Amino acid sequence: MLCIPSGAVAIDGDTLAAVGPTTEIQANFRGRREMDLRGHLLMPGLVNAHTHAAMSCFRGLGSDLPLMQWLHEVIFPVEATHINPETVYWGSLLSAVEMLKNGITTFCDGYFYEESVARAAMESGIRAVLGQGIVDFPSPDLPDPGRARERAEAFLAAFPGDTDRLRPSLFCHAPYTCGAGTLQWVKSLCRERNILFQIHLSETAGEVLELTEKKGMRPVFYLDTLGILDDLTLCAHAVWLTPAEMELLALRRVGISHNVESNMKLASGVAQVPQLLTSGVAVGLGTDGCASNNDLDLFSEMDKASKLQKVFAKDPTVFPAWKVLRLATCEGASVLGWERKIGSLEPEKKADFIAIDLNQPHLTPLYNPVSQLVYTVRGSDVRHVWVGGRHVVSDGRVKDVNEAQVMKEVGRIAFRVKKETCLPIHG
Amino acid sequence: MLCIPSGAVAIDGDTLAAVGPTTEIQANFRGRREMDLRGHLLMPGLVNAHTHAAMSCFRGLGSDLPLMQWLHEVIFPVEATHINPETVYWGSLLSAVEMLKNGITTFCDGYFYEESVARAAMESGIRAVLGQGIVDFPSPDLPDPGRARERAEAFLAAFPGDTDRLRPSLFCHAPYTCGAGTLQWVKSLCRERNILFQIHLSETAGEVLELTEKKGMRPVFYLDTLGILDDLTLCAHAVWLTPAEMELLALRRVGISHNVESNMKLASGVAQVPQLLTSGVAVGLGTDGCASNNDLDLFSEMDKASKLQKVFAKDPTVFPAWKVLRLATCEGASVLGWERKIGSLEPEKKADFIAIDLNQPHLTPLYNPVSQLVYTVRGSDVRHVWVGGRHVVSDGRVKDVNEAQVMKEVGRIAFRVKKETCLPIHG
Repeated sequence: MLCIPSGAVAIDGDTLAAVGPTTEIQANFRGRREMDLRGHLLMPGLVNAHTHAAMSCFRGLGSDLPLMQWLHEVIFPVEATHINPETVYWGSLLSAVEMLKNGITTFCDGYFYEESVARAAMESGIRAVLGQGIVDFPSPDLPDPGRARERAEAFLAAFPGDTDRLRPSLFCHAPYTCGAGTLQWVKSLCRERNILFQIHLSETAGEVLELTEKKGMRPVFYLDTLGILDDLTLCAHAVWLTPAEMELLALRRVGISHNVESNMKLASGVAQVPQLLTSGVAVGLGTDGCASNNDLDLFSEMDKASKLQKVFAKDPTVFPAWKVLRLATCEGASVLGWERKIGSLEPEKKADFIAIDLNQPHLTPLYNPVSQLVYTVRGSDVRHVWVGGRHVVSDGRVKDVNEAQVMKEVGRIAFRVKKETCLPIHG
Repeated sequence: MLCIPSGAVAIDGDTLAAVGPTTEIQANFRGRREMDLRGHLLMPGLVNAHTHAAMSCFRGLGSDLPLMQWLHEVIFPVEATHINPETVYWGSLLSAVEMLKNGITTFCDGYFYEESVARAAMESGIRAVLGQGIVDFPSPDLPDPGRARERAEAFLAAFPGDTDRLRPSLFCHAPYTCGAGTLQWVKSLCRERNILFQIHLSETAGEVLELTEKKGMRPVFYLDTLGILDDLTLCAHAVWLTPAEMELLALRRVGISHNVESNMKLASGVAQVPQLLTSGVAVGLGTDGCASNNDLDLFSEMDKASKLQKVFAKDPTVFPAWKVLRLATCEGASVLGWERKIGSLEPEKKADFIAIDLNQPHLTPLYNPVSQLVYTVRGSDVRHVWVGGRHVVSDGRVKDVNEAQVMKEVGRIAFRVKKETCLPIHG
């Protein structure tokens, strides 16, 4: 991992023209606009490899409940009642604002009414992979699951043309909510269009046990027999894997999104990230939806990802800061199939980068920038963000979104949720 | 845990006169000064039950190294060379600034040259329990450990008179660095003066094994035979305890500081906090020194404390947000023996409270304030802080400290550390 003291970047349109020492950049380039970022650390924008952006409408709803009670008594009922194109739009816009302010320049999403997520992503200036959700039972945006293929094709047909910044994807919820037939036609449609196929995989021990009994083999082998696994398949969570499953994931070049805070908060388990990396599996870092987190901050995910592995393995060397930082940047880009364009600061890549204000008491002194980024920096330390060369966050404010209006609209949605939902009492 | 919507506090001098609905407060009190904090959440200032403030000079130094290598090749050598009254003062002032900005109004410290920590605490306006460190080998401020008693008595004699805000304490490093005789005279001196006795206890499995073999009994029983354990003894870490040790700690009314991030980062282990609470042991929350953390933010400690227990116990209900919040406030006050004056918002207690700006994208919407505080709020969301009725942080700035100067001075210390220390290469 290369650190350049007194470095600079040169941008041409939406692309990085050069990265190097300031003296060198100034000798070779003359910018129409120049910006002095002394005292800041520049780094690639972070890649959030797995989220459900619209779920910010339900931030923290039903915290501290047992998983099944949380899902069946809180999340599923409020989704059934309150999810519609408008709420998905406002929730996603709120999440895009939160992510940009936290230095996330790309997110990978899966939800219902994904057209509304695309609209929010488009307006906010963030980069995204947007997966229309598919399940074999009635969902908010598809009462008749028999018409899922039409729904998916309509989503793809209407997808905004600028695939340089927004890419379509399809998202089968999980092997236990989508039958073999569904998984196969969805993956085949993804192959046809050369787009990312997303799925939740082996998040809880219970689901793995159940699926293994039903199919007579472990989930990764089951998906492999269906021909689902390749380098444009992204599996979220992947907590409960055998060594043989990890080997197969590596062989098929499948990407994983590790979602440490969600796995901790829902008590799903500790994903074997160091072992996945040793097996040669590409792993990105995801926030998951912020109902189970309860925020969208990859700095806090990096801190937890490293420290959880250390204490779990009883070994402080098992997951060092530089490896974690790769998950949130270049490896995240790689699991989205976008590694040629984003994830690092290199000429010819998109100009997606962020500036962190180092001149603060909690970031003083600075011995090792990588350690500081992973263990100390917070999302709130990000001052400026560029996506494809556009300055989308300036001095901590998102330029193209009216933040006050978005908070007001989501506040209204939450007011209705509170009013119409009978929430279990806790605390 | 009581939440008052549209609440207010009335302050008389350094004391809370009343807490209640704004209408009620306005009907009964007329303030000489009034402050409108609409859109903010007011709560008790947080209590950091264990830290070594001066270690901010070494923030993140030697991250990701094995514990013994980190201690013996990095921390001990830099302490031996760079710790003096001036560096302790500047490091502690930097930490006081960081803590206040993060909403910590009281901290409990243990280090060398504790007079310098007292000076920093005095100037910054923070409340503190300040423990002069004692070990049986030569230390930066006492080359001859035979003179430790003189050193401790001199520290107590010179302690600033205003014990309303600063309280003296003595801090025996650990049962494996202080012999039985030392532990006993220090505790006896603490009893004489009615002050807090601090000690590191059972942080790593290795130290417990070694001490148990040497003394023929587990550490808690060993300390009990020496008569060390009572309600003015605070044990930091307490990761490796048997049920019988927990029972004895409860019986003796000993307080514990749980330091989750440090325990995770150094891979020390997962403290059995829910079991300690069930046994009736009072537990506070501490950041530990920020060399092993690498910051001083109890919001992030709360988030990790809860989530780590959940994933470790495979039970999302095992350590709910409201219990964690108590650790960082009223239970923290209790382990310092200060529960009658701080730790909650109640009439007659000190006016130590903080205001959190809720009107931000990542804190929208708000369903449950306690869940939001533990899982979503960051130290950077604290806008105002009062300690003993004094407005010490206003709009995110510490009023009585020149932040830029403190950062500059600690930057100078770090420059010397970097120059004169041969740090192991890593990353």
